[in-house]
Amino acid sequence: MSGAQPRPPVHLPDGVAEPAGLVDAVLAYEDALMADDVAALDAFFAPGPDTLRGDAAGLLLGHDAIAAFRRGRGGAPQRTLVRLEVRPVGSSGDAALVVAVVAPLGGGRGQQTQLWVRGAGGWVVEAAHVSAPAPAIDTRVWRVVGAPLVAPSDPVAAASGSLAGETIAVKDLFDVEGFRVGAGNPSWLAEAPVADGTAPAVAALLAAGASIRGIAQTDEFAYSVAGANAHYGTPPNPLAPGGLPGGSSSGPASAVASGQASIGLGTDTAGSVRVPASYTGLWGLRTTHGAVSRERLLPLADTFDTVGWLTRSAAVLRAVAIAILGEPSVELAASFLVDPALVAVADSAVQLAFSAGLAGIPVDPVGLGDPDELFETFRVVQAADAWRADGAWVTAHPDAVGAGTAARFAIAAAITPQQESAARAALATHRARLDALLGDRVLLLPSASSAAPSTTADSAELDRVRAATLRLCCIAGLTGRPALSVPMLSAPGPFGGDAPLGLCLVGPRGSDVALIALGEKLAAALGGR
Amino acid sequence: MSGAQPRPPVHLPDGVAEPAGLVDAVLAYEDALMADDVAALDAFFAPGPDTLRGDAAGLLLGHDAIAAFRRGRGGAPQRTLVRLEVRPVGSSGDAALVVAVVAPLGGGRGQQTQLWVRGAGGWVVEAAHVSAPAPAIDTRVWRVVGAPLVAPSDPVAAASGSLAGETIAVKDLFDVEGFRVGAGNPSWLAEAPVADGTAPAVAALLAAGASIRGIAQTDEFAYSVAGANAHYGTPPNPLAPGGLPGGSSSGPASAVASGQASIGLGTDTAGSVRVPASYTGLWGLRTTHGAVSRERLLPLADTFDTVGWLTRSAAVLRAVAIAILGEPSVELAASFLVDPALVAVADSAVQLAFSAGLAGIPVDPVGLGDPDELFETFRVVQAADAWRADGAWVTAHPDAVGAGTAARFAIAAAITPQQESAARAALATHRARLDALLGDRVLLLPSASSAAPSTTADSAELDRVRAATLRLCCIAGLTGRPALSVPMLSAPGPFGGDAPLGLCLVGPRGSDVALIALGEKLAAALGGR
Repeated sequence: MSGAQPRPPVHLPDGVAEPAGLVDAVLAYEDALMADDVAALDAFFAPGPDTLRGDAAGLLLGHDAIAAFRRGRGGAPQRTLVRLEVRPVGSSGDAALVVAVVAPLGGGRGQQTQLWVRGAGGWVVEAAHVSAPAPAIDTRVWRVVGAPLVAPSDPVAAASGSLAGETIAVKDLFDVEGFRVGAGNPSWLAEAPVADGTAPAVAALLAAGASIRGIAQTDEFAYSVAGANAHYGTPPNPLAPGGLPGGSSSGPASAVASGQASIGLGTDTAGSVRVPASYTGLWGLRTTHGAVSRERLLPLADTFDTVGWLTRSAAVLRAVAIAILGEPSVELAASFLVDPALVAVADSAVQLAFSAGLAGIPVDPVGLGDPDELFETFRVVQAADAWRADGAWVTAHPDAVGAGTAARFAIAAAITPQQESAARAALATHRARLDALLGDRVLLLPSASSAAPSTTADSAELDRVRAATLRLCCIAGLTGRPALSVPMLSAPGPFGGDAPLGLCLVGPRGSDVALIALGEKLAAALGGR
Repeated sequence: MSGAQPRPPVHLPDGVAEPAGLVDAVLAYEDALMADDVAALDAFFAPGPDTLRGDAAGLLLGHDAIAAFRRGRGGAPQRTLVRLEVRPVGSSGDAALVVAVVAPLGGGRGQQTQLWVRGAGGWVVEAAHVSAPAPAIDTRVWRVVGAPLVAPSDPVAAASGSLAGETIAVKDLFDVEGFRVGAGNPSWLAEAPVADGTAPAVAALLAAGASIRGIAQTDEFAYSVAGANAHYGTPPNPLAPGGLPGGSSSGPASAVASGQASIGLGTDTAGSVRVPASYTGLWGLRTTHGAVSRERLLPLADTFDTVGWLTRSAAVLRAVAIAILGEPSVELAASFLVDPALVAVADSAVQLAFSAGLAGIPVDPVGLGDPDELFETFRVVQAADAWRADGAWVTAHPDAVGAGTAARFAIAAAITPQQESAARAALATHRARLDALLGDRVLLLPSASSAAPSTTADSAELDRVRAATLRLCCIAGLTGRPALSVPMLSAPGPFGGDAPLGLCLVGPRGSDVALIALGEKLAAALGGR
């Protein structure tokens, strides 16, 4: 029955017979896998919503989600079967667990556990669990990693500093002495000098006792909130299997969500900390514009660029913020505003989750203005800044940039001086009006317009998501206010089931640390319901 | 029934009832796991030789092997259960697959698939497959890793050099510009300067188009052949789950065997390439003494130190050797010698595997002398050299070195000048005699006295294995001859089943590349039987 795949040694318990046709089915499945014959593979998996397939990226539930994953991955790594352990289940001869030790062509050993059941149409897989050998470095997430890559700068702080024991994933935009800045683009990296110093935003963390785990990937030049990179791939989102991690601080977010670092050091211009925090279920703070040094940081849009952090716990985020910004001088009152017109740009499921999540919290309505008009002002100023920062390089390297980023730079290149100055005038007006409306109160909104989109979403869908999400995010940008994403909501995930969604708190400028404390209180109050 | 572990959401197919007592058993198991209650865990796993447990380290077969692993690991990482997918198998209600999504305390998501079966004593696990989130860097194997860490030095070679596309795991003894040398010891690393140049043995590989994947761990100061490190842990051996990888080039061997790099750049003084090659199923070449530059390489014992390489394929090993040493001028005749007294120091299973492996290959017997006496000469000269290289540092850092290494240095410190000069005189005599006996012929022997010992082997057992293995290895050291380990034998592994064992070919000085060609011929001839 089998094609290319030779029959490996098959072990059964002593005296137990091999179920008829089972090993042939396993070998035929293996042939289909090696040929990426997705129709055959789909047929080998039991139909219905209860079929399971899990690997390092997470557990998929249901035949359709598994089939969609299979279509998106572009084939499995080539491998041979070293041996099969077959364990019939029950006495009917119609069910067996098959555990395969596999030898990937690229080295190492993997394991595949499958529950096979025989029905009218023959043997099918009801559940599969696949382990492939881990790479030395997950290049979707990291560019360089060490144990540590850079030690804390002070032995006392390393032992007893407020960040002792914490590990940093540094977004590949900050100078780290002895390393290049890659900016998410291999051609940029190849020309980059070795940094002769470390960015203050990094050095301050090292001084508080944290070490650098590694330099993490970013969306190209930080000019995206999707969390994909045409050159290095898409960092995984362990909290939403099959979903994008969000960007542009995609590598730090993925690293922290995966437990590979405890502090993601990122930047947030238009949502690049808040969006990945929302998608990957992390705490994320965009700091007040200008509050944290941007020295030795590759700029995207000076007018809006901020430093930000991603953590799994509020406690670590608070410790980081205090280490860099100092203890807060005052508390922030739990006085909340919500702009219904702004919330309405989010997906309906997100609007529902946001409303349900805030049930019982007193909020006052506010009208911040037309979300399209606010975003247009933000977009033009950001694009003009971005072209000023990167335009010369992008022009000199026309084929070096991925399609999505290139499209955004092309639009940025077309901004006229007149458009820019009009937008900057509008920015000043909007900012004054927004400041008057927001005052010392805290604006609540969803951190993103949806949970993590699927990695296989088409560009139209991603454009739609980005447009809505950027409208939510731009209020903090326009006002230079800090914004905290609290991982306390959920919304439909990329393959069904729930995925994380952040609740965003936009506070007064300079309220960064107090905003975290307020977010903790809110999470405690609402988590207790 | 359950203790600390709260009941997570449990999903079953629509209309399917939860098997009685199953979830309680799963939760009780989880409580036992979190408490590292090994007796309870042992009882939850089905007795007998057919029980299965697999994870990233490999598949263990049988209740006893699983129990031994459990006793050796020192507890599982703390985690909570996110949800359980329960799939009853058959209609008896007595078997079910339980797939758990788990949230490790350290972040990320893992998966555990278990086949539970109800017998007279209640529910037990017949098979388990566990996936934990991968770390950013496996610190047992690597100290620093990049994508790449160092690019090929020449763009033309990167595209079309003989080693284009290959990735190097550099043993942490070679200078790599911009990085420190760690030598397998954190205190040494902390004091090490950043290298201002790259060792020629590394640079030559970069010039041929290979890139550096990372800097890989070594047994401390390369002074061991076990493959363990008191500070950084034991690199995994994917070909012998639960087994040591061999050392001292342990990190490079583990990395290459796992598919994390394609070229392991190591050193071999007393077997530090051949032993890990043997244990992990790799091709390994110890080069002719002096044939490859040792500039910018931390020495262990100058008299015997050589550079060596580890690869998964003969083709890559040949390409590396030719890139560094040039094309061979002559072929090596398939004229083989075997010293029965030397082979007899190996474990009996290895002697059997060696004899069976060579059946049909014409060999002539040779008597090289008393293995104990030969090794004693080697040992004293190596120890004197090692103390000269590292004694001052070890003396100044009395608590910085792991127990096993410290014991060897203590013995080295006690070598008197008289003992050393007597040993050096004996070395000259032995070398002349061995050269006369071996001539231009190739000595065949097992690369090690056993397959990989268990990571849980006690020090008496490891001492026994080392003593025997070093007797096999010292012939190449005493004569400065190259030695090739070919992965073509097998012997009983650490937890039963077969594990890799190398066939070692010791050739004339300068025959390095020709020796690889001969090894390939031998492997092809014997592999075809």
